[in-house]
Order: sequence, then C-alpha cells, then structure tokens
Amino acid sequence: MTTLADLPTPVLILDRQRLQANVARMQARAKQLGVSLRPHLKTAKSAMVAELAVGKTGAITVSTLAEAEYFAKAGFRDILYAVPMAPQKLDQVAGLIKRGVDLKIITDHPAVAQAAAEAGQRLGVTFRVMIKIDCGLGRAGIAPDSDLLLPLAKALSQPGAELAGVLTHAGHSYGAKDTAEIERIAEEERVAVVMAATRLRAAGFACPTVSVGSTPTALFAKDLTGVTEMRPGNFVFFDLFQAGLGTCRLEDIAVSVLATVVSHHPARNHVLIDAGGLALSKDTGANRNVPGTGYGRVCRPEAALPLDGMNIHDVHQEHGLLGGPEAPPVDFAAYPPGSRLRVLPNHSCMTGAMYDRYYVTDGGTEIVAEWDRINGW
Amino acid sequence: MTTLADLPTPVLILDRQRLQANVARMQARAKQLGVSLRPHLKTAKSAMVAELAVGKTGAITVSTLAEAEYFAKAGFRDILYAVPMAPQKLDQVAGLIKRGVDLKIITDHPAVAQAAAEAGQRLGVTFRVMIKIDCGLGRAGIAPDSDLLLPLAKALSQPGAELAGVLTHAGHSYGAKDTAEIERIAEEERVAVVMAATRLRAAGFACPTVSVGSTPTALFAKDLTGVTEMRPGNFVFFDLFQAGLGTCRLEDIAVSVLATVVSHHPARNHVLIDAGGLALSKDTGANRNVPGTGYGRVCRPEAALPLDGMNIHDVHQEHGLLGGPEAPPVDFAAYPPGSRLRVLPNHSCMTGAMYDRYYVTDGGTEIVAEWDRINGW
Repeated sequence: MTTLADLPTPVLILDRQRLQANVARMQARAKQLGVSLRPHLKTAKSAMVAELAVGKTGAITVSTLAEAEYFAKAGFRDILYAVPMAPQKLDQVAGLIKRGVDLKIITDHPAVAQAAAEAGQRLGVTFRVMIKIDCGLGRAGIAPDSDLLLPLAKALSQPGAELAGVLTHAGHSYGAKDTAEIERIAEEERVAVVMAATRLRAAGFACPTVSVGSTPTALFAKDLTGVTEMRPGNFVFFDLFQAGLGTCRLEDIAVSVLATVVSHHPARNHVLIDAGGLALSKDTGANRNVPGTGYGRVCRPEAALPLDGMNIHDVHQEHGLLGGPEAPPVDFAAYPPGSRLRVLPNHSCMTGAMYDRYYVTDGGTEIVAEWDRINGW
Repeated sequence: MTTLADLPTPVLILDRQRLQANVARMQARAKQLGVSLRPHLKTAKSAMVAELAVGKTGAITVSTLAEAEYFAKAGFRDILYAVPMAPQKLDQVAGLIKRGVDLKIITDHPAVAQAAAEAGQRLGVTFRVMIKIDCGLGRAGIAPDSDLLLPLAKALSQPGAELAGVLTHAGHSYGAKDTAEIERIAEEERVAVVMAATRLRAAGFACPTVSVGSTPTALFAKDLTGVTEMRPGNFVFFDLFQAGLGTCRLEDIAVSVLATVVSHHPARNHVLIDAGGLALSKDTGANRNVPGTGYGRVCRPEAALPLDGMNIHDVHQEHGLLGGPEAPPVDFAAYPPGSRLRVLPNHSCMTGAMYDRYYVTDGGTEIVAEWDRINGW
C-alpha cells in the first residue's frame, strides 16, 4: 500500500471523493437548467477525470490540440477546441477529423473562417466551426450585434466548412463581488449568445449549438433558456480563488500539492518547504478576494481544511515560505524537517500544469490510483 | 530546412548566438574574479546548454533531483543540488553517489545534517554537504554569525557525512535600484559567506568550497576574495526582468516564445495570440522596473528587438492579448491571423518550465537543432 508518506515531493494529490461530489453538483446543475454538460478539460487535462464527468464517450471541451489528440486516443469523439483557431493548425484538426473525431473549432475572424473553408476543400474534410461571441469579458469574440456575425456565418457556409453554432465565455464572472453579481453576469452571458443565435437563424443559418460556460456562471445562472450546453472547467477541482469568490467551500477543493518541510528560520518566522513558484505556480489571483492567501494555504497531509494563518507568503523557483513576518508565531515543533504538508492552490488550472500525473486518494492518506495528464501543446 | 514558419505554436525558441555571447561574458567574469563557474541549470535545464557553459564534464548546480538524474545520465559528475535537503531524498542522492556522481547537497538545519550522517552510515555513502548561509535575502540559510554554524559543521563531521563548504545566494540583488546597489549587495554576499568559512576554519573544520551566486551579483561584483566559485543561472538566457535591472540589453535575451496571431479586436485595440498564461507564465516581475511590460514584449519573428508598445497586456490560460486600451493604436494590417510573433519573457526560468524542448536558431529563422529540457521533479 502506497501512502502520502511514500511519495516524492512535490507531487499533485487528487481527492477523488471531492472530485466526484463536484462533478455530481455540476451534473445536477446542467440537468436543472436543461442543458448538456460539455466540461472544459483545460483544468484537469485527464481522461479519467473526463470519464467521471461525462462517461467514456461524452462531449468535452479542450484548450490545446495536444489535449484533442490525447482525448481522441482515449476514445473521446465529440470534442470542441475552444481557443480561436490559428490557420496553421487546420491540417492537424483535419487529421483528427479523418480519424473519426467530431472535432469542432472556433473563430471570430472572417479571414480565419475563409481559410477554414478553403482548407476543408483542399483537405477533403468539413470543418465544423463555432462563432465566438463576447459577452463582456473583452478577450475573444465579437459582440452579439456585430456586423461581422453574418459575414462569418456566410464564410462558414461554403463547402469545406459548416456553422456549428455560437459560444461565449463569461470569464468576467471571476471578477464578481458577490454571487448576486455572478447571477447578473450569467444572464448577460445567456442573452449575448442567444441574441447571436437568434440573428443567425433569422438570417437563415442553422445554429444548432448555443454554448455558454464558466464555473461561476454555471453554478449561479437562474435560467438558460435558449442555451443548449455549458462548458465549465474549473469546477472539477475548484481552488482558493473559487472559494474566495463563494462558488465552493474550502472542503470542496480536490487538488493539493504535497510538500516536505526542509528547514526552519525562527528569526524570520517561517518554515521552508520544497514546493515553490514552479510547484505551486505564481498565480496570486486568490488574494483579490482573500488578502493574505499568498501562494496557497497549508493543510496537514491527512486533513481536509487549511491551518489558520499557515499560508505560503513567498515563493522562489523551488522554495516555498510558510508563515512569515505577517503571520502568527509559527509552532516550529509541529513542523519538523521531513514532515509533510498539503498546499491548496490559488488557481488549480495553473498549478496542475506543472505535473504529469495525479496521485489519487479517496480522502485518506492511501494512494488508490495514478492518473495521467496531458500538458504542453 | 525547418524554419520558424514551420513550427507549431507556442514553442520555445533559443538563439544560440546570444546564448554563446552570454556564456562567454560570464566565463570572462569568473576568470577576471578568480573563481570557478558552476552555473545553475535551473534556468536552462538542458545538457546542451550546460555543455556550452562548462564543457561535457564541468561543475554544475541543479534545483531538483530530476535535474540531477538527467545531468548524471548526460555524463556530468560534479553536481551541486542547491535546494535545502529533505531527509526523504537522501536515498535517491545516495543512489546517484553510488553511480559515481559527486553530488553535493545543502542544509542549514541541524536535524537534517544529523539525518544525513545517519543515512550515510546506513546507506554506505558519505554525503558531501554544504551549509547554507543567508546574506540578506531572508529565504534559506543561517546568518554567518549564527550559533548554529559550528553545531552544523560538527554534525557533518561524523561518519556518513562531510562538510563540503558554505554557500549563499544574494537573490535580493534582484530588488536593487541600480547597478551600484548590486555592487554593494555583491560585497555583502562575499562578506557573509567568507565570514562563515573563516569561523569554520578557525574552529578547525575544513571548508574547501566557498560559493556565491546570482546573475546580478556575478556580473557586478568588484572583488570575490575568499570565494572559490559562483553559481549564476539566469545569465544564459536573461529576460525582461534582467534587462530592466540593467544586467543585460534587450538584444541579449536568448529565449523567446514563438506564437501565432489568431484574431483581432479593433474595438478593444488588441491582437489575440495563441500564447497565454501557460505559454508565457504569469510572472509579472519585470513590471517592477519597467511598468507596462505586462506579460512580455513582442518582436517580429526574424527580429532582434521588441516592437514599441507591443506588449502582452493580459493573459488567460491559452490566450495572450497584445496591445490593449493603454497601448498606441495597433496597426492590425501588420498582424494578420496566421502571422508569427516572438515574445520576450519576463522571467525565463518560469517561462521555460512549460516546454520540453528548445528550437534552436543561430539568430535567423532557420531551426538548426532541437535541444531537450528536464522539467518536473
């Protein structure tokens, strides 16, 4: 039997019980809202997590073509690559389509839509393309009332391409002050993408899929009339940012970094651990809602909840500093060198990206499985 | 012939000519200062870069045991693992020592020193251990006048262990306001570690190695009397942080991320590229010295220098936003979808960590080699 004590550090630990509860919560939300769930695997990047969420052949979303290849190999056939398409990547997408994958792509630029249709003709495939709509985030996407919407749809109605629908992402829900604001943003998200679908249909275009998606809006939307699917991603694991936003409890956070104490510096009131800026990531977003979170909160290896005041206040590449000048006095005897701790991440998408696998527990200290991940591009 | 235009994106590009010039500069510094160069490979994590810097069998520094294993396999035999030792990792270190690697470890905690001696006896090896000294950074290390210094040396003088020397790292030089301050910090770094060595020798301990190291102090130290080696790491590549600090020029930065334009959003004055928070890292340190740097500065793929005002002002996981509301009006026609750009990183150690290889150029657009990297732990 392998336990947390046997693992090298730093490693990424996944609590399957929390994962399953998080998945069940989102499945219930999708059912209640009358939409299908196409989870975004950019957070988990793992076929085992995808299978738990939607079964072996369910619909998924990916953020890289490396993920698309990996999930295709694992048997998934209904995949949306939800990052705006670069024309150079069309050949690789065509390869996946020819291997039987219903791989959909997205764009909001007429030149890319045109390039997709031309490449489809050249390569002998039909690219199924969704038009990206901006609902207030201001990252990618055209406005729902944009003059570009119909030209895009027209470009995608040539041989070699097909308009698969519209999608949006209310990433600005992460900046909400409270859950009431998340509700309002969820409604903006719905209205934007439904308006785009309505305009397309009024102009004679089929628009089968109307897709929204962010973890906060998926959890707090009151109504998704007109929407067909949602694409939340972070919910499988959650993190300290989500807890600070009020979308989960601390005891819902399913991933953590197992680290080892390597030294004490009482004059500086800190414990040094072997998980630093690479192992934890330097994302400090969670401090916006909960100042003092630092680079992560610390738990006992066997425990569900973080220790009061025991946060990672500074990181260097391979060093994490626990405690620090602003923290309550550290009880150094409680953290001897060689003892183990778990760090809840600020942003599980970023922290996970440094690891090639999950060590899976069922809430205890025993490792019940190792699940792989696909990183890179 | 493969060129930048043929590569998938995002990928990491390494300009070998700049790398060689950076290495030559640091080799000249070491010679001038009369110390040996033991570069820290935490930045490059690549045997080919190590070989350029110190030859196939030179002395190197590493930040993980994964690096130690990788460089040992590549033939390196004189390796310092310069992160405070976790007792659990002694077995793996012993395995490397038994395979003929002179792998030195570090600590500043008496319990770890004691554990090393006991493990050495149990495992039939002699751990060569350096004592970590703090010279003002306040991360790891004891003060040079600490009461712990001699007990540490004593613990390391038992069978199973051996005191290999003292080391320090003036990481606070990264916070210097100007090069005059870097000079002062370099002198503090020297004084601290030489004082510790002097105390050890006065008490009858051999202290063969006296080691300092950070890229800024290595470049600006006036004198290293009493020091035997230096361990700079970032200098092989440099980055925007170093350029802002005044330790390199923009045209010395040897790594960049090749990205592809995927869309335009004229109303928001930004170009969208396929390199985001994972491809560029979310390290924003360079903004301290050069506000507005954002997440990186943008060059033409064939060019040496960044374009004025064309910085990455925001990133999401797989999206980079070039330009933005604060930037000069973007000339969108100059960046059609599918066109390529190179992004100079804020912090090359963090950016590099997401890639498994370098695509190497000799300053032009032709790819002359692929060099591997060792990531993870």
